Amino acid sequence: MKHPLRKHIEEIISLTDKEFDFVLSHFETVKKRKHQYLVQEGDIVKKEFWITQGCVKSYFLDENGKEHILRFAMEHWWITDYESFVKQIPSTIYIDCLEDCEFLYISYENREKLTSEMHKMERFWAKKSKFGRIALQKRILSLLKNSAKERYDLLLEQYPQLFQRVPKKLIASYLGVSRETLSRLNS
Amino acid sequence: MKHPLRKHIEEIISLTDKEFDFVLSHFETVKKRKHQYLVQEGDIVKKEFWITQGCVKSYFLDENGKEHILRFAMEHWWITDYESFVKQIPSTIYIDCLEDCEFLYISYENREKLTSEMHKMERFWAKKSKFGRIALQKRILSLLKNSAKERYDLLLEQYPQLFQRVPKKLIASYLGVSRETLSRLNS
Repeated sequence: MKHPLRKHIEEIISLTDKEFDFVLSHFETVKKRKHQYLVQEGDIVKKEFWITQGCVKSYFLDENGKEHILRFAMEHWWITDYESFVKQIPSTIYIDCLEDCEFLYISYENREKLTSEMHKMERFWAKKSKFGRIALQKRILSLLKNSAKERYDLLLEQYPQLFQRVPKKLIASYLGVSRETLSRLNS
Repeated sequence: MKHPLRKHIEEIISLTDKEFDFVLSHFETVKKRKHQYLVQEGDIVKKEFWITQGCVKSYFLDENGKEHILRFAMEHWWITDYESFVKQIPSTIYIDCLEDCEFLYISYENREKLTSEMHKMERFWAKKSKFGRIALQKRILSLLKNSAKERYDLLLEQYPQLFQRVPKKLIASYLGVSRETLSRLNS
């Protein structure tokens, strides 16, 4: 049976067995329990995570301690604070586990090494980065033009499993609406 | 004197004269006048543009004909509809010239060819794409957490030249506020 990471990478590029072993040798595994964090504000983020099990949230805390949800991520999604990871500057966000989680992760140094040595993997991450950028562009358009109801319906359509796994107040925060508004949308 | 595109690329990777000539051979030039378009809704976008002169806006038109500004771009910035360009699907946005403009552009086929043949250029665009993604993430956080006044101040700090070159009503649209609110912020 193919390794799930190999299946994931081969959605974009193809790899030989030897190449995949080489790629995988750059990763390590880690487990975290619900409520544990991957990234805290102020960290210089050294790892990019690929979720093998579980669900996480990335968020910003404002000066009043209010959480603003940037995104959720679950099995077979990549997550880190890209600003901190790419520029190696202190993070402005938090990433916490919403469930018990397992990850494969790659260090900053190993990712630089792997993408320098292996054009295919540069290409893989370049494509993933483009897709990430497109998703963010869609979210901005949605924040600018859609009503709360439309944003809710879009999220439900794209990620129905989120509504089973993530507390309602976090979904409200992601949508930029109050929990009361969400309850009305939800009914 | 170094070609401005070479200077721009060499902020991220270094090129020999021969390599830059090879890169440049994949580009063509085009001029557009104020109000002409680069991209229209429904187009399958075949070109990515690098602005050598001028200023453009990308925007979404809602069902009431209201413009929602996605971004502005000017000299030495890249612009296209990335969703359409990367996935080769019909565009959902428009890109118009706000001034008389000049561009270098690369076709979809030439960009695929160049990035496949030249790992360095794959790396260059991968980095640009990461930076683009980071900028979009910051904009989402700003839309979620900042007041109109804070968003205005941030834009003024980051791109003071925009306020000289772009009509106020477009800046209001970018910030997601009414023109009246912008006038109050502006005073």
